[in-house]
Amino acid sequence: MKRMIDVQNVEDIALGAAVLGTGGGGDPYVGKLMANEAIRKFGPVELVTVDEMQDDDMSVAIAMMGAPTVMVEKMPGGNECVEAFNAVQSYLGKPIKYVYSIEAGGINSTIPITLAAQLRLPLVDIDGMGRAFPEIQMVTHNLFGITATPFTIADEKGNSAVLSTIDNRWMETFARSIAVNMGATAMIGAYAATGKQQREAAVYGTMSFAEKIGKTIRAARAEHTDVIQALKDVTKGFVVFHGKLTDVQRKTVAGFARGEAILEGIAENAGSTMKIQFQNENLMAEKDGKIIVSVPDLITMVEEDTGEPLTTEQLRYGFRVMVLAMPAHQHWRSEKALTVVGPRYFGYDVDYVPVDQRF
Amino acid sequence: MKRMIDVQNVEDIALGAAVLGTGGGGDPYVGKLMANEAIRKFGPVELVTVDEMQDDDMSVAIAMMGAPTVMVEKMPGGNECVEAFNAVQSYLGKPIKYVYSIEAGGINSTIPITLAAQLRLPLVDIDGMGRAFPEIQMVTHNLFGITATPFTIADEKGNSAVLSTIDNRWMETFARSIAVNMGATAMIGAYAATGKQQREAAVYGTMSFAEKIGKTIRAARAEHTDVIQALKDVTKGFVVFHGKLTDVQRKTVAGFARGEAILEGIAENAGSTMKIQFQNENLMAEKDGKIIVSVPDLITMVEEDTGEPLTTEQLRYGFRVMVLAMPAHQHWRSEKALTVVGPRYFGYDVDYVPVDQRF
Repeated sequence: MKRMIDVQNVEDIALGAAVLGTGGGGDPYVGKLMANEAIRKFGPVELVTVDEMQDDDMSVAIAMMGAPTVMVEKMPGGNECVEAFNAVQSYLGKPIKYVYSIEAGGINSTIPITLAAQLRLPLVDIDGMGRAFPEIQMVTHNLFGITATPFTIADEKGNSAVLSTIDNRWMETFARSIAVNMGATAMIGAYAATGKQQREAAVYGTMSFAEKIGKTIRAARAEHTDVIQALKDVTKGFVVFHGKLTDVQRKTVAGFARGEAILEGIAENAGSTMKIQFQNENLMAEKDGKIIVSVPDLITMVEEDTGEPLTTEQLRYGFRVMVLAMPAHQHWRSEKALTVVGPRYFGYDVDYVPVDQRF
Repeated sequence: MKRMIDVQNVEDIALGAAVLGTGGGGDPYVGKLMANEAIRKFGPVELVTVDEMQDDDMSVAIAMMGAPTVMVEKMPGGNECVEAFNAVQSYLGKPIKYVYSIEAGGINSTIPITLAAQLRLPLVDIDGMGRAFPEIQMVTHNLFGITATPFTIADEKGNSAVLSTIDNRWMETFARSIAVNMGATAMIGAYAATGKQQREAAVYGTMSFAEKIGKTIRAARAEHTDVIQALKDVTKGFVVFHGKLTDVQRKTVAGFARGEAILEGIAENAGSTMKIQFQNENLMAEKDGKIIVSVPDLITMVEEDTGEPLTTEQLRYGFRVMVLAMPAHQHWRSEKALTVVGPRYFGYDVDYVPVDQRF
């Protein structure tokens, strides 16, 4: 039986993906509105497992790139998605049969649904991170030698580019400047991959997992059960801090939202302080001056009563939050992967210690 | 009878084009070496007039983009030209039959010869400026509604991009950041235009004119006649200053070589001072604090004895030079054109006064 993504599924996916989005990946509210409008207009979207793809079937990831602080003010139209898709297809010179999501996040999990609805194409139940990361090369596909080329980037004004680079780190450099020129946010199409490649490189089941997380939050709210406990159970995560937001520093630089949030401990953490540093996504959590969680593990702040995940651009003084830490996908824990997404890549001179070894 | 560009013609074209290059457009020595190597390997290049193109025949401009200060250190390989050409052709989906030069200059007049030799295609005897200008939209084709799209840009490492923008000013923005990322210099293919469009928009006869200027300088040197007088005659130009370089300020910023040169008057200009400001190309010449020549008219410094044109990156303390001013092509003197290349575009709050009205 076919699995179809309909309006209620989108609601759950957007919510759950924002938990996996670790503060980035876009606002689930905006993402939900866009995907649901497309589904109402064009019908539900078929979700397939990676095993349903033929070896040679081609798929492409569509996403928003840029500072989420700006995305909030510059909502994508929808045409840019189709243009980005068409540009990759025309460059490849063969039909693309599947759409997939490059990262988990409120917008970047739902943009591919929006496009899949518009084009009547199936969506593959995978992503390229199992979370959200800020840079183009931070994709599991990159670890398996899959190139982001042909990479297309388009803005709402009608400007576009097709980039071809010798490696995916160079792609980050070029695409980032163009995204900045486009007004700090743009639509991209990238990491075209065959079924065979996806089976090797992708993070499996991310869309279903996001939906399951979203459904869990929704159920706990409806049943007035402990939403934080439910979240811990479903994500195999850890609550590493309970606090109140007392300070948020945030600036949009070089196409990223960079900054830090300071939490003052409450209840079981009274007397302690937590600092969370972010670059679009939450990167490091320090408790009383000591790092207790770091990339590539996931750090997500959720509202203490509702379990609502907070993106970095939503953080405000006074919010009472639980800081949830979740283990990264195995792909990210190899030595090679840590050179791409570990603490040192982001400028922190510390070793990565898996969160499940600390708690 | 076919007109063919051979090794001696390249020598003259490179030299003459550097006079028209107003300090920019690249080093004629480097340009000459590249073109002659290609001609020796693949044979002479056919030069055709714009009238020999059929209405629908497609042509494309190939050039180097970036700070000439960097070009000196990063010589292009030659493969980038072919890649830039192929990318435009594949985007257009139809064969390109002609190559042309977008601007006059030591390198940018000879790069198209190099490519034409490699591909065995004829070169059209035109350019898009009748001189050199620093930005992508400063092309006569732009005044006639011809788009720079599809615009391709490639570096020596193997990175490339195909850009498509809503206007040519946006192209400048995107292409400039990519050129900066590529190391401040890159190879571009742009302004694909049909024979019909070229007849309307191009500056006619620029290659022949450059050759004539180069030949004139060479003859005057051989015959020990007055090279400066010969240059004035052939370019219908004016000698506006005779001086010694006493100061050069130059920095490479945002992908351009920007700066100014100070000349202390000698002989007939003893007691006077001239300041020449440049952005890759010479933009303004002030004598004793008063502007006497400005864009779009041409300002070129030539060595006083040999008539050798000096590019902005070659300027050194102690050089004794004649400052030559030449009238811009008529296309550049309309009100519309002046919004694109007049003094105010470059940030000078003055009106343009044609040099032939001042001298």
